[in-house]
Amino acid sequence: MKPIKVGLLGFGTVGGGTYQVLTRNQEEISRRAGRRIEVAAVCRRDLAAARTQVGEGVRVVADPMDIVRDPEIDIVVELIGGEGVARDVVMAAIAGGKHVVTANKALLAVHGNEVFAAAQARGVMVAFEAAVAGGIPIIKALRESLAGNRIEWVAGIINGTTNFILSEMRAKGLDFEGVLKEAQRLGYAEADPSFDVGGVDAAHKLTLLSAIAFGIPVQFERAHVEGIVGLSSVDIKYAEQLGYRIKLLGITRRRDELGGIELRVHPTLIPSQRLIANVEGAMNAVMVQGDAVGTTLYYGKGAGAEPTASSVVADIVDVTRLATADPDHRVPHLAFQPDRMDATPILPMAGVRTAYYLRLRVADETGVLSRITTILAENDISIDAVLQRESREGERQTDLIILTHVTVEERMDRAQEFMQSLPSVLAPIVRIRKEELA
Amino acid sequence: MKPIKVGLLGFGTVGGGTYQVLTRNQEEISRRAGRRIEVAAVCRRDLAAARTQVGEGVRVVADPMDIVRDPEIDIVVELIGGEGVARDVVMAAIAGGKHVVTANKALLAVHGNEVFAAAQARGVMVAFEAAVAGGIPIIKALRESLAGNRIEWVAGIINGTTNFILSEMRAKGLDFEGVLKEAQRLGYAEADPSFDVGGVDAAHKLTLLSAIAFGIPVQFERAHVEGIVGLSSVDIKYAEQLGYRIKLLGITRRRDELGGIELRVHPTLIPSQRLIANVEGAMNAVMVQGDAVGTTLYYGKGAGAEPTASSVVADIVDVTRLATADPDHRVPHLAFQPDRMDATPILPMAGVRTAYYLRLRVADETGVLSRITTILAENDISIDAVLQRESREGERQTDLIILTHVTVEERMDRAQEFMQSLPSVLAPIVRIRKEELA
Repeated sequence: MKPIKVGLLGFGTVGGGTYQVLTRNQEEISRRAGRRIEVAAVCRRDLAAARTQVGEGVRVVADPMDIVRDPEIDIVVELIGGEGVARDVVMAAIAGGKHVVTANKALLAVHGNEVFAAAQARGVMVAFEAAVAGGIPIIKALRESLAGNRIEWVAGIINGTTNFILSEMRAKGLDFEGVLKEAQRLGYAEADPSFDVGGVDAAHKLTLLSAIAFGIPVQFERAHVEGIVGLSSVDIKYAEQLGYRIKLLGITRRRDELGGIELRVHPTLIPSQRLIANVEGAMNAVMVQGDAVGTTLYYGKGAGAEPTASSVVADIVDVTRLATADPDHRVPHLAFQPDRMDATPILPMAGVRTAYYLRLRVADETGVLSRITTILAENDISIDAVLQRESREGERQTDLIILTHVTVEERMDRAQEFMQSLPSVLAPIVRIRKEELA
Repeated sequence: MKPIKVGLLGFGTVGGGTYQVLTRNQEEISRRAGRRIEVAAVCRRDLAAARTQVGEGVRVVADPMDIVRDPEIDIVVELIGGEGVARDVVMAAIAGGKHVVTANKALLAVHGNEVFAAAQARGVMVAFEAAVAGGIPIIKALRESLAGNRIEWVAGIINGTTNFILSEMRAKGLDFEGVLKEAQRLGYAEADPSFDVGGVDAAHKLTLLSAIAFGIPVQFERAHVEGIVGLSSVDIKYAEQLGYRIKLLGITRRRDELGGIELRVHPTLIPSQRLIANVEGAMNAVMVQGDAVGTTLYYGKGAGAEPTASSVVADIVDVTRLATADPDHRVPHLAFQPDRMDATPILPMAGVRTAYYLRLRVADETGVLSRITTILAENDISIDAVLQRESREGERQTDLIILTHVTVEERMDRAQEFMQSLPSVLAPIVRIRKEELA
């Protein structure tokens, strides 16, 4: 059988890593695919640099369309990133009847419906394991391994930069700004970190997880996105005293009673004894709750050249096996297509069910706690725990920490407004969502 | 396209769970498989009982061969267990050209080579995700998701009974015997627990993981098997003081310098901060180290009706998709076949590289520590940490705890023999292996 020919578009960190892995482990990879896999061409603007990186038999081009239009190429691997050239290249590859493997979460989270529909119409596959959580095989787990399950929810640490920052803040008791600078120095954060620390990158990935878990179209524009900017180490410390860690989680949950789905990224308190609460540094982890399997967790490196390449190569092998098995596309939706395109609505945040951590700076005077707990009770919010810091000698104000049970966010919005208007509440209330993940 | 017809052999806990899941989630499962999946027949000796469990359209038989010989059946799901009837049924199904899905680790660990060879010759699939770690999709992760990697090692908590017992021993400071009784009362341990607590069940599963990770034939008879019988809570306590937990691990590691593979099940000290050290109760977890992806971990329920059914159904969906895509078997080894049948040797324990925890009951007199450390040094074993318990008032003996760095087991065997022969060493030395898993 003739080899499968792969074209790599984008030859930076992940592209280089993919080439390395495909070359180094070629024999084993080809055996597992049941067919020889060869990199036939790579695309990099700096042709001379690319030439030094690849072997003799590999064509080097500067224009990605040279690969997309090459009739020899079976699989186009898009590692350019972003929503510009990458989008044109992917759409052109699909139109040309080529299978696509991509690590591009932004492209798929925003334009996925268009991409998937085009692929379905043309009978080609679009595989994107590397787009979510780097080397962790979470897409395949959701699509295939848990195929027997009705997925209830997915919750993940899916951005390494923010997890590194939060881990350092906790370990060293430092605030966000100081740790961000260290992370930038160490290469864990970009010079412009807003995409990561603002939660957008996590929301891109969560959008894809949600689509696959619930078989719905991507709806990134409906995701609730909060990052970790301004998070205070004081809250990390209080949370720890109460038995919780704070992580930036992407959470998507089926809410059948409302016929909708929650889709949200925000800092979240998690019980310290949960495995996912102990995922430190730049590592990623995703929890999946299925009706049959119960809780499962998948852990690994969420970024980096070779961890990401591991997922890219797994997709290349899958596409090779499936394309070889089914050259006539006799199985519809063979892989990597959402189950259906009807839009199960994403719920507005006001309807989300979650618990809360509240930190209130209050005057140290009689009756404050009573007034606050009355407001919570009037809004049907029940209290799980209270921590009142002893005020220091001469201080006239103190921190009051409240953990609530699960409620509906709009109730908490209303209660917070009332609490904030009390004269004894001296500063803006800090509110962080809390999930038991059980 | 006509539906895929499934026959369930064995209708106990997992069989019943599989039927439940296939029925409850039939619509979603069929959509994901790209084809309707129907349970056409079930086999249970008690026909009347089976009749009450299944719907009108399902045939109920008492003889498994009635299903195996039924030309209507496409996939035989073997959930009988054991190596007797189950083996006959599986071999007959393969001979009849039917695909097989099984949860039977004992059968495959012992007779897997015969089963896989027969399946390969006949062009059918044998899928066994449910045979290892219940609901955790570790077989697919190794075979497909990590297909780009050269696997370095796999280490797992793959027996829930022993992990439950060890968790309870640590939490309550109790010894093995007491906790075993509690586990039996709660249904976490069988009336005859020897298969679990002796490590055989874990070794069956590890044998399968090893075969898939390294593409070698199953070689259960070469596995080193140690269980947790007789493990003392005192060692769990000392380990904890030194920053370790004790888990029953199955470990398989590539040792290229010797052209062999380690395959061993035994109690193991693991650093407390490792995620896998914090896997408690009856939960399972498997770590995989790949050259590209680095460390990954997979966590979930290792047993139970529906978690196991989750994996059985995933296999049924996979077989359905692949059988539909490739009815002419144009892709050799489409799935679930070892890469090659040449026997990479399993290394004898004497050649295994690991570190150790040693507990010596010694006379509380001058020079003991010096004599012991001299023996270790003479055998090229370097010491990582020493913990000497203060002897109590009037006591003339004390516990000496030593952690070593990594060495070769035959060196430790020799050193232990010398240490044991010292007059100051008053009781049999307790030796537990220690792995950093990093």
